[in-house]
Amino acid sequence: MIVLYHNAASTCSQKVRLVLAEKGLEYESRSVDLIGGGQHDPEYVKLNPKHVVPTIAHDGGVFIESTLINEYLDDAFPKPALRPAAAAGRHAMRLWTTRIDELHPNAGIITYGIGTRPMLMTRSAEEIDAHVSQIPDAARREQRRSVIAHGVKAPEFAGAVRAFTKVLDAMEQSLSQHPWLAGDQFTLAEAAALPYVLRLDHLAMTPFIEARPKVADWYARVQARPSFDAAIRSQLPQPIIDMFRKNGAAVFADVEASLRT
Amino acid sequence: MIVLYHNAASTCSQKVRLVLAEKGLEYESRSVDLIGGGQHDPEYVKLNPKHVVPTIAHDGGVFIESTLINEYLDDAFPKPALRPAAAAGRHAMRLWTTRIDELHPNAGIITYGIGTRPMLMTRSAEEIDAHVSQIPDAARREQRRSVIAHGVKAPEFAGAVRAFTKVLDAMEQSLSQHPWLAGDQFTLAEAAALPYVLRLDHLAMTPFIEARPKVADWYARVQARPSFDAAIRSQLPQPIIDMFRKNGAAVFADVEASLRT
Repeated sequence: MIVLYHNAASTCSQKVRLVLAEKGLEYESRSVDLIGGGQHDPEYVKLNPKHVVPTIAHDGGVFIESTLINEYLDDAFPKPALRPAAAAGRHAMRLWTTRIDELHPNAGIITYGIGTRPMLMTRSAEEIDAHVSQIPDAARREQRRSVIAHGVKAPEFAGAVRAFTKVLDAMEQSLSQHPWLAGDQFTLAEAAALPYVLRLDHLAMTPFIEARPKVADWYARVQARPSFDAAIRSQLPQPIIDMFRKNGAAVFADVEASLRT
Repeated sequence: MIVLYHNAASTCSQKVRLVLAEKGLEYESRSVDLIGGGQHDPEYVKLNPKHVVPTIAHDGGVFIESTLINEYLDDAFPKPALRPAAAAGRHAMRLWTTRIDELHPNAGIITYGIGTRPMLMTRSAEEIDAHVSQIPDAARREQRRSVIAHGVKAPEFAGAVRAFTKVLDAMEQSLSQHPWLAGDQFTLAEAAALPYVLRLDHLAMTPFIEARPKVADWYARVQARPSFDAAIRSQLPQPIIDMFRKNGAAVFADVEASLRT
C-alpha cells in the first residue's frame, strides 16, 4: 500500500498524484494542512526533514522530493511507462523535470504574492510571523516574508513572472517539434509541468497560456486525460480556485506591467 | 563517439569523467578554458545555453547538466550498472545526486573565495569585471562578484562552509549504514559527491574530512579506484592543486572561524 502525504493545492503534490493516477495506483491519502502548519508537525518532519509535501511511504520505505518520487514510481511500477524508452528521450524528459524544479520557487512567489496574500493580510502580524518563521531554509523564509508584505510589488515578483514566461516559451518551442514535451508520449515531464501551468490559469494569468498556441493545446490535452480528473479536478476545492482567480484578476494589470520592468 | 566539453578542475566535469572512466568509455576531449572565458564563446553557448561545463555530444545529440548526463550514460551504456537495481536504492541514489546539485553553488563560493581569488586579485578591476559580467544568471553573477571582492569575509562565505559540513555529516551518517552512499555498490552518488570532497581537500580543508572517519575511509576507497586516476589524478594540473592548497592553508583559521559565526 502507498501512503501519500500531500495537499490538494500544492504543485508538487499534484505532480505525484498525476503519476499515481496515470498508473492507476491506489493510495491512502493523508492531507497536510499547509496554511495550518501541518508540514512543521514534528511527526511529519521526521518523514520529511525539509518541511514540505509530498512524501510517500511504500514497501517499508519513505520517499521525498516530488521529482524523485515520480522516478521511483516509474521504477517500482513500470507499466504504463512514463519515461521514454531511449536514453536520449529520457535525458530530454529529465531536462524538463529539472527545469520545472528550478521554476518551483517562483511558483511560491506568485502564489503567495497574488493568491494567498489577501487572505493572510486579514491575520495579525504575529500570526503571519509564527507561520513564516517555521520555514527551515533562511532564504526561502525571507522571500516568503517579503512576498506576503509587498505582493506584486515585492522585489522578487517580476523575476518570478519572467521565470514563468521563459518556461512557457521553452514549452512552446518543444511542443512545436513533438506532441509532448519530451517526444511522442506523455511522460513525467507532463506531470511536472502541468501543475505550474494550472497555477498560472488559477491566478488569472490565463492570457499568458493563450498567447502560446502549442502550450494552450497541450494544456487542453493534459486536462482531457482521466488522470487530471482523478488527481486534480476532483481534489482541488472550488473555493480556493475561486479565491485565486478573483485575487489574480484584481492585480492582473500589475502582473503584466511587471514584465516590462 | 562521445565528445566531452569539459575542464580539468571543474567539479561537474569531474563527475562525468568519473562515470566515463568507470564504464571504460573513450571520448574525444575538448577542454574549455573557464578562466579565459571559453564557456562564454558563442559557439559553445549554442551547445550549452547556461555557459557551463560539461556538455557531451553523442549519437547525434547534445546533452547538458552533469547529473542528467550521468543518468544518460547509465541509460545508454548500462554495463557496468552505476545505479542500484531496486527502485528504493535508485531513489536513495537520486536523493544524493540532488543533494550534491543543491550543494554545487557553494562550491563556487569556496573555490573562488579561497582558491582562485588571490590569482584574480592580480588582475585589473576591468579584467575581473569583464570575466564576471558574462555570467548569464544575475544572482550567480552578483555572488561571484562579492566572493572575489571579499573572499572568506564575503557575506555568502560562512553559509557555504556550513552547507559543506552539513553534507559531510549526512555522508557520515549514510556511510555508517552501508559501504557506499546509496547502499552496497559504487553508484552515480559516488561520482557526484567525490569532486566536492576532493575540492575541500584541495582547499586545505582536509581536517573537515578527517574529522569524519566514515567519510575519510570512503574518500580513500574512491581515490583507490582506477577511475580516479583516469578521470582526475592524471588530468588535474599539479600547479592548480598546489595553488589551491597554499591559498587554503593561508586562510584556514578564518574558514574554521566562519563556522562559529
